[in-house]
Parts: sequence; C-alpha cells; structure tokens
Amino acid sequence: MDLLPSIASASQIELGEEIRRLKSWPFLHIDIEDGNFLPNITFGMKTVKAIASAAEGKILDVHLLVTNPMDYLEPMADLGVQKICAHIEALPYPMQFLNRARQLGMKAGLALNMATPVSHLDPFYPAMDFALLMTAEPDSQGDQLYPPALDRAVRLAEERGREIEIFADGGLNEAALQRLARAGAAAAVLGRLAFGANQPFETLSELQALIQQ
Amino acid sequence: MDLLPSIASASQIELGEEIRRLKSWPFLHIDIEDGNFLPNITFGMKTVKAIASAAEGKILDVHLLVTNPMDYLEPMADLGVQKICAHIEALPYPMQFLNRARQLGMKAGLALNMATPVSHLDPFYPAMDFALLMTAEPDSQGDQLYPPALDRAVRLAEERGREIEIFADGGLNEAALQRLARAGAAAAVLGRLAFGANQPFETLSELQALIQQ
Amino acid sequence: MDLLPSIASASQIELGEEIRRLKSWPFLHIDIEDGNFLPNITFGMKTVKAIASAAEGKILDVHLLVTNPMDYLEPMADLGVQKICAHIEALPYPMQFLNRARQLGMKAGLALNMATPVSHLDPFYPAMDFALLMTAEPDSQGDQLYPPALDRAVRLAEERGREIEIFADGGLNEAALQRLARAGAAAAVLGRLAFGANQPFETLSELQALIQQ
Amino acid sequence: MDLLPSIASASQIELGEEIRRLKSWPFLHIDIEDGNFLPNITFGMKTVKAIASAAEGKILDVHLLVTNPMDYLEPMADLGVQKICAHIEALPYPMQFLNRARQLGMKAGLALNMATPVSHLDPFYPAMDFALLMTAEPDSQGDQLYPPALDRAVRLAEERGREIEIFADGGLNEAALQRLARAGAAAAVLGRLAFGANQPFETLSELQALIQQ
Amino acid sequence: MDLLPSIASASQIELGEEIRRLKSWPFLHIDIEDGNFLPNITFGMKTVKAIASAAEGKILDVHLLVTNPMDYLEPMADLGVQKICAHIEALPYPMQFLNRARQLGMKAGLALNMATPVSHLDPFYPAMDFALLMTAEPDSQGDQLYPPALDRAVRLAEERGREIEIFADGGLNEAALQRLARAGAAAAVLGRLAFGANQPFETLSELQALIQQ
Amino acid sequence: MDLLPSIASASQIELGEEIRRLKSWPFLHIDIEDGNFLPNITFGMKTVKAIASAAEGKILDVHLLVTNPMDYLEPMADLGVQKICAHIEALPYPMQFLNRARQLGMKAGLALNMATPVSHLDPFYPAMDFALLMTAEPDSQGDQLYPPALDRAVRLAEERGREIEIFADGGLNEAALQRLARAGAAAAVLGRLAFGANQPFETLSELQALIQQ
Repeated sequence: MDLLPSIASASQIELGEEIRRLKSWPFLHIDIEDGNFLPNITFGMKTVKAIASAAEGKILDVHLLVTNPMDYLEPMADLGVQKICAHIEALPYPMQFLNRARQLGMKAGLALNMATPVSHLDPFYPAMDFALLMTAEPDSQGDQLYPPALDRAVRLAEERGREIEIFADGGLNEAALQRLARAGAAAAVLGRLAFGANQPFETLSELQALIQQ
Repeated sequence: MDLLPSIASASQIELGEEIRRLKSWPFLHIDIEDGNFLPNITFGMKTVKAIASAAEGKILDVHLLVTNPMDYLEPMADLGVQKICAHIEALPYPMQFLNRARQLGMKAGLALNMATPVSHLDPFYPAMDFALLMTAEPDSQGDQLYPPALDRAVRLAEERGREIEIFADGGLNEAALQRLARAGAAAAVLGRLAFGANQPFETLSELQALIQQ
Repeated sequence: MDLLPSIASASQIELGEEIRRLKSWPFLHIDIEDGNFLPNITFGMKTVKAIASAAEGKILDVHLLVTNPMDYLEPMADLGVQKICAHIEALPYPMQFLNRARQLGMKAGLALNMATPVSHLDPFYPAMDFALLMTAEPDSQGDQLYPPALDRAVRLAEERGREIEIFADGGLNEAALQRLARAGAAAAVLGRLAFGANQPFETLSELQALIQQ
Repeated sequence: MDLLPSIASASQIELGEEIRRLKSWPFLHIDIEDGNFLPNITFGMKTVKAIASAAEGKILDVHLLVTNPMDYLEPMADLGVQKICAHIEALPYPMQFLNRARQLGMKAGLALNMATPVSHLDPFYPAMDFALLMTAEPDSQGDQLYPPALDRAVRLAEERGREIEIFADGGLNEAALQRLARAGAAAAVLGRLAFGANQPFETLSELQALIQQ
Repeated sequence: MDLLPSIASASQIELGEEIRRLKSWPFLHIDIEDGNFLPNITFGMKTVKAIASAAEGKILDVHLLVTNPMDYLEPMADLGVQKICAHIEALPYPMQFLNRARQLGMKAGLALNMATPVSHLDPFYPAMDFALLMTAEPDSQGDQLYPPALDRAVRLAEERGREIEIFADGGLNEAALQRLARAGAAAAVLGRLAFGANQPFETLSELQALIQQ
Repeated sequence: MDLLPSIASASQIELGEEIRRLKSWPFLHIDIEDGNFLPNITFGMKTVKAIASAAEGKILDVHLLVTNPMDYLEPMADLGVQKICAHIEALPYPMQFLNRARQLGMKAGLALNMATPVSHLDPFYPAMDFALLMTAEPDSQGDQLYPPALDRAVRLAEERGREIEIFADGGLNEAALQRLARAGAAAAVLGRLAFGANQPFETLSELQALIQQ
C-alpha cells in the first residue's frame, strides 16, 4: 500500500521546504479545495504548478474538491500529474471526467464523501482506475477519523481491491493503516501524520515497514 | 502613499521565505480568492494564519475576493488584520460588512471591479475608511493595467482623497504610481513589481523614493 | 403622507391580535422575506392569506424581499392586495414585473436596497406607480436608520414626488417622517414605531397629526 | 410513540393562541422552511423565538427545511430546543451537523425527502439520535400521505427502531399512526390532524390512547 | 418495443424537412436541453411548438433535461404531448412532477443519468408510467453507448418491465436494441441511427423488423 | 445603418429555408439564449454551426444571452462569426471577454438589458467595437418596444456614435428605425419585421430605402 503525504496538511507558507523534508519519498498527494465544494480553500493552479516543479521526480496525484472539476484536467496533465480524482457529488457526468482524464494520459478516479453511498460507484468500475473514499469530514479541527467510514473503505478494498485501486483519505492512524493494508487497499492519504512529524521521510518509512509486517 | 506588496504574487511554495525577503517593509497585502468570485484560487484561512504569524510586526490588509465576505471578518480580526475590504459586487448589504468590520476594530473598505460604476460607492462614504479600485482584470496572464481604470482611480483620489483613503490595485507601473501619489491616493498594491524583484525591500524603497519626489 | 405599519415588526405569534390593535387604521404593510434574498425569513403565502383575511377593509401593500418575485404576483392579487413592489436587484426584467402586476389590477412598484444607485430606476418611471427606497439595511438588531439613505429618499421625493409615489422604509423616526412628508413622499413604512407602541392606533394618529403640521 | 403537533399547520396569525390550545401537551414540532429548499416559507428565527417562549415547558423539536442548516444550530440551542434535524439533501457533511448539534446539547437527527434512498443514512447511524422520514411531499394542497413512503418508514422502524429513533412526517392518518407505533417508531408529526381539530389536546389524547392499544 | 427517433439528432436548420423524412413513422422524441442541466442547448418552447405542429398525428414524448422541469408541464400538455419525463437529479419532489403531469393528461416518467443509482426510483414506481435510463453521457462527440449502463437498463426491463415502461436512451446500436427488446423494454430512443440514415422511415422499419424476430 | 434580421424570430423548424428567403441580404443576427440568463431557450452551438454553414457569405453577428459567455468565444470564431457581444450583466470581467474576442479576430461588443444604466459601459469604450442596447424586454409575447429604452439608444448613438457602433434590439418599428438612423446608430436588429414578412429580402430592402431618405 502506498502512503501518500498530503501537501495540504503541510505548513502553507513553507511549501518548498516541506517538500524538501520529504526527501526521496516517491509520492505527493495534492488537494485542490475551492472554498465552495467544501468550506475551505487550499490553493489553486498557480501554487500547484510551483509544487509540481519543486516535487520533480515524485509521483503526483491530485484530489479535486472543487465545483467544476473538468476545468482542471488539462492543466494538471500538463504538469505531469499521474493520478487524478474528482468527487462524484460534483460530477453529473462522471464518464466525461474519467474518459477525458485517461485521454490526457492520467489514471482516473472518483472520490466519495462519507455521505454518498458506495453504490453510486457501481456503473463506473469498468471506466475508472481508482476510487478514493473519505474517512473523515472536513471539520477545520483536524478531520477526525470516522470509524464507520473506515469500515466501508476496508470492505470495498476487500471486495473490489483486485479490480480497481482503493484509496482512503481522512484522519487515518496506524491501526487504520494496518487494517487497510491487510484488506488490499492500494493507497492511504496521510496529513498530519506525515507533515506533523519532525522527520516526515523517516516517519513514512517506519509506517511503511509497519504495514508490511 | 503606502506601497503594499501583495503576497498572492509571491512564490506560493515559499511564502515564509518571500515574507522574509520583505525584511522590515512595514506592509503586507493579502488577497483571498476563492475561485468562484473570480476564476482563481489563492489560499484560505489556514494559510493566512500562517502568513500573519510569519509577518508579525507588519501592518496587514486583507482584500476579500470571495462570494461570502462576511464569513471572514471574525477570523481576520483575530489574526490582527488592520484593514479589510470586500467587493461591493458580493455584498447586497455593504453597511453590514463595514459596521461589523469596524466593531471588530478594523479599518473597513469596499472594493470595486472595473465594471462597477464608482457611483455605487456614493451612499457609503460616511461609513467606510477606504475604497480599493481595481485597475486591472484578472486574466491569469499577469493582470494588465487598464488605463481608463487608472484614470478613474486618479480622479477619485483627487475628489475624495481627503475624505477617505483610496487604494489602487492591478498592473501598476512606475508612471501609474507617480500619478496616483500626486493625486492623493493613500495606497497602491504591488504584485510582480514587488515580488518579481531580486530584492523586494530595496525595490520598494526605491519606488517609495521615486513617488515622494 | 400615508403611514404604513409593517406587520413583520409585530409579535409573530399574535398576528391576529396585533392586527386588531391597529383598530381602524386604514393601511397594512406586509414584508415577505425568504431568507435567501436577505438573511431573514418572515412568512410565506399561507400566513399572508390569513393576515389579509384578518385585515379585511385595510389597504394592503406587499413588499417582496424574495429571489423570485414573479411567483407572488397572482396569489397576492387574489388576496386583494392593492400595491406591490419587488426589489430591482432580484429582477433582471423589471418591466415584466410591473406590467404583470398592473394587468392583475395592482399598483406596481420597485424597491431599492441602499447599495443600488437611484439611477437604476431611470428607465422605469413611466411604467411604475411607486418606488420604495430602503433607509436601513437588515441587521437583525433593529434596522438602524442610515442618514445618507434618508437624504436620497428626501431628494427623490422632491424631484420625482409629483410623478410617482415615493415610499421610505427602514428605521424611520419622527424627525425623518417630518422631512419625508415635507419633501412630498407618499408613504413611510413604520416597524417598531408602530407595533412597539402600547397603543399603535393612537401612536399612528399622533404621528399623522405631527407630520401634517 | 410520541405525537408531535406541528405548529406550521396551525393558524399562522394566532400562533400564541394555537399554542395555548395545546394545553399541557408535552411536545411541539417546529418546521423552519425558507422557500428555497422547498417552495414554501413558514417562518424564521424571530418567530421561533416567540414560539419557544410561548411554549415554555414543552419539549421542542425543530425540523430544518432550509438550504443552510448549520446557521440555525446555535440560535436553536439558545432557545432550549431539545431535538433538531436537517435534511441530508442540504448537508454535504452530515457529521458536521450532527456533531455540532450534540456539542450544543441537542439530540441530532437527519431528515430524508421521499426521493432520497434510505441507504443514504447508512454511514451515520452511530452518530445520530433520530431519523425523520418524510411520508409526503409538499404540494401546497395539504401534503398527501404517500403509501410507499409510509411503508419504508415502517420498515426502517422495524429494522432500526431499537438503535435510533424513527420519526415519520407527512399526511399521517389514524391507520398510519397505528402501523408506525406497532413497528416501533419513536414519534409521528401531526399537522392538520392536530391543529385542524376543534380541541387539539383532546384529539391528541385520543390518538395516543388509540395507538397504545 | 417502440423506436423513438430523437429530433435533437436531426439537422437543426431543417427541422420541418427532417420531420417530413419520417413520413408516417408514428413517434417523435423531443429533448429539451437548457445548457445548464447539461452542457448543451437544443431548443426551447417556441421551437417545440413548431415541431409539434409539423409533427401532427405523431405520438410525441418529451424528455426534459433542464434545471426547472415543473415550468414545462403546462405548455407541453397544451401542445398535445402524450408522454413526458424529467430527470430525478433535477427534482427534489418527484411526486409533484408525476402527479401534475398526470393531472394534465400525460403519461409521466422519471429519467436517470448513468451516475444515479436505479434505487432512486424505488419509492416512485406506483406513481409513474415509465422510466428513461440514459445509456450514454453527453460528450458532444456523439454520445457513446456505455455497456454497463445498457446492462442495467436490460436488467431493469427484465425486473420491472411488466409494471412500468422502461425506455433506454443514448448511443444504442442494433445489438443493444435486440437485447432491450428481448428484455421487455417498452421503447428505445434513436438519434443518429434514425436521422443519420438516408431514409429514416425505411431504416426505422428495418430496425423494427429486426427486433421483432 | 445596417439592418440585421434575427434568425431567432424565424420559423425554428425551417431555419435553412428561412435563411434562403433572405436571398443576398448581407447580414444575419444570431441570438443564443440558454433559458437561464433569460427565461427562453433558442438554440445552441450545434444549430449555430448549421446556420453558419447555410448562411455562407453573410456577415454573422452573435448576441450571447447566456450565463457563461466566455465558453462561446472560440467556437464562434471558428465558425467565422465577425461580431459578437455578451451581456454586461453576465460578465464580471468585461475586458476579458472583449480582449479574448478581439484576439480571436472578431469585433467585440457589450449588450445591456434595459434595467442596466448606460453608465456601466463607461470604462469599456476604448476596448469595445460596439454596444447593443435592448429596447424591449423578453416577454414571450413578442417583445414590445419600450419607448424610454429607444430614447436612450438614440441618445447614446448621438453622443457616442462616432466613437463606437451602437446597435438597438427589440420591438423596433419603422419610426424607431428612422430615429435610430438619423441619430447615427450603426445597426438595428429586426425580428418579426423581417421574418414575419412574406418576402423578407424585399421588405428589408424597402426599410433600407426608407431610412436612407
């Protein structure tokens, strides 16, 4: 299971330095939030461009929490982003998003808020590469893990993990990571667990070792 | 005339370093853009909090380019922001905004897009401390100065400059700064002119000398 | 000048009794607010129907502070409402509203928030019977009179008062009523001044005497 | 099963009197409708404040049919409301609503329009105290009971009634009340059945006796 | 199974001629798209009125892909439309739509985008005459058939085809038509397959023969 | 003064034939209406493409009555459209629209609803080629000429007609055309006056002769 440190949880005024603290860690997860799809703004295309350049060599995946996800596909592909997902709640026509993302050479995914039944993904499995399930709600107090949401991510990983990649995102702790890895999840997004650490690279390495036991 | 370097024009992944490059320059201008009021996202409250802490000792002014400006007043006052303005195009009840901002101890202003007649400010002069006039439109290619918009900012500074403070913002060059200063404008926002320079503090100091001649 | 007591300022749980307290006062002003055009809900059609029935014999005028004013024209005409106005800020096509209201046998008006220049009325004078100018903003703390807004209502009454009826609404006190009456305003809306009184009918009668001096 | 008379079905111009007609009946159900979430306005905070004061001693529950439910939580808690629910269709982040309501000391629920599958509640059972299922649609002609919606409320009460409280709301008649009570529903909202009666207290008492057989 | 040629796929500047090319074919399917519910505009009421008049004698069914479906019911009934459906994604209160359509003498249906689970129809089977399932997304490149969406239309026809009429719409080819007919679907919408043919009437007749084998 | 027949007023089901009825008349005016900016849908890009091809050799001008005008610029330029305008009410950043239209090789204009003061155009004269003033409101009953709106179009043509081109649009009759031509207007849009005629080409020629006297 890949561990994806989420730059939105890093210190926002030292993004370059925060990326350097990741050293050779191969992944970087980028949340674009517009303050309308959810009540928080992270950053827009200009910042992501700078992040991508500072993170050269890393595998970038972008999680769009915006009201108009289609607008971001081309700019993200131009930056070399390899995986991209948007929320099904913001996509009346998910196939458009998935097909266009793939045409542009990216792996394409759909993200689900905790409030949206997993059955909403049903028609789209053949057309997508990964699903990202939120395991917390944004609460501007550090997005607490919600156990029933973790349960359904674990269940989906067990049921569909061989067919598509399952990502979990939101408030994950060590025990949650172990459960997800055992269930066959492909990736887990880490916020404060990664960037809140004194030495993110070393912390990520230890977590990686832990889940591989 | 105060020269306000705008942190939204700095490198978004080195905000802390960019603030340090300003050395003892006393001002910092903060644009909060939500990707809905205008088609660009800058950053949200979390980043502004970190900016405010890194810019301790500077006079902060916040320019809200968001659809719900009222939501930002309390958090900005808590951070010690001294001046705050929002767009009249997003405020059906500007007095509410102005009064609440003042109650919270801030200087309160209204901002105008180029497309909004200056006459829209007429009822609010007694209740506001400053007006910010856009002199460019956001075009994601470096916001070009639009001369007729500069003309109206100059005219408003001449007519109303003793009564309230007039700010100009967007694509300003040296000649524009000189005209604004002569007309009695209180402040000018600088983007690339400040942060695009090798040595922002020195560049700002030279511009300040130039407009004081 | 007519004094219009505004039922939205009465005790909302004794509306029938409050109407009876008006005794034979000939007017009743009804604000329909939907919590979206402005941040407060008063009541909807069902309540207005009951009000109209309890206020039989009074001249009813309705002030629509809603996002879709067209939807209210027919129901209000059916209730015998004689004057109706909506906000120009909510009407891309004011002629539609004015013409339809007149077709239905009502006097038709346009209302203006304080933030909207009076020049927005210019094209519509020939097609409307009255203009209602807000002299306060809704602040959920008792809508304070804003003097510059009173000034412009007085000015409009002086300039246009013979051509169309001018109404003022919001935080009006005795001195304001006297100025408006002298300037030729046709009507003034009274909230707490009317229903906050122990004896609304007697208070209204005294105010009427005062402004006729 | 508790029988909750809904004040939105009472005479809107005699709310105080209508509340007095309930005598010592211990419950009062309050629908706040904003004319945008659904096409009807009932009343806003000012009226609810007066209702709460007139209904002192009763157990108040509030049903929010508004586009921004979060805005109502604090004012309702301040009024002593004991149970509050909002529509999941208006809540992208239901946990935020539920957690905040509980923090403020209220029982927290989610309401479902007939058009929303019950599976949308699945992730939230551990975090909520009750679910309110609509058994009619608002049709401005007296909200007719829709039998399949009653069936699903009965089914949910049977399946989940021991875990959380199930409320049914909309067009309920005597037979429906009996089915719901037998299935283990916790409460039923009554509109015209309560306030349309000559003697609401006596009618409610008879209905209570009926369903306890 | 009825084959419904969709006039939105005909040459938009020769609609009259295109209708004549259908000769005595008894059906015409009309998509009203508003550029907001989905990113394409077809035509509005004025054009539909002319279509209805040119298509006299045909059985018209209207598929509303608009944000406010309720506005279209009366005008469509006035034109003699016999079947009408709207998208459940645009209808917070589907019963209102279905009941009003039936009151006006039309057969009433609900349409589903591919992204909406079929379970959303569950409460409404007793109240509707037909369901239209999209089998493609609008992609402005000729709406490609999406096989999993066809599968679910086939499945729904098998399960519910005796109870209500099932329509499929989007990118259907000959093999898809055969599967749908065998499963008991009531109708299939044809775009380019009908109007892209040199002789639409003859092509439709051949397809009809094919699926009756 | 150019007379621009408006294809939105032609028979919508014989658009090809209607264009042929114009014979060699050199102009064609195309209204794209989306049912959201105003309450009517005309047609979208697919139809305009067919119109442009059928009208080869004519000078096409497009009037955008849509909520997102920017989306239409490239497709319209690709079709060879020579003049394009959008409503200032739908454009927070008019310069973006005007500059982009000019970059694409088109003449760029701004359109004004009757309810928008002409002063809203003030900052944009240097950047635009023409202004289109509505002289009627859409009323779905044949858009009646509103004399005060004609007056202001005449006045603007007199004042600004040498600087930029002034277009008038809505309910124009012969007397109105004569006044506009005398005042120096550059063009007038004709709906029913053109396409309601038995012989549009001949009628347009006669009107042209009339206004040249």
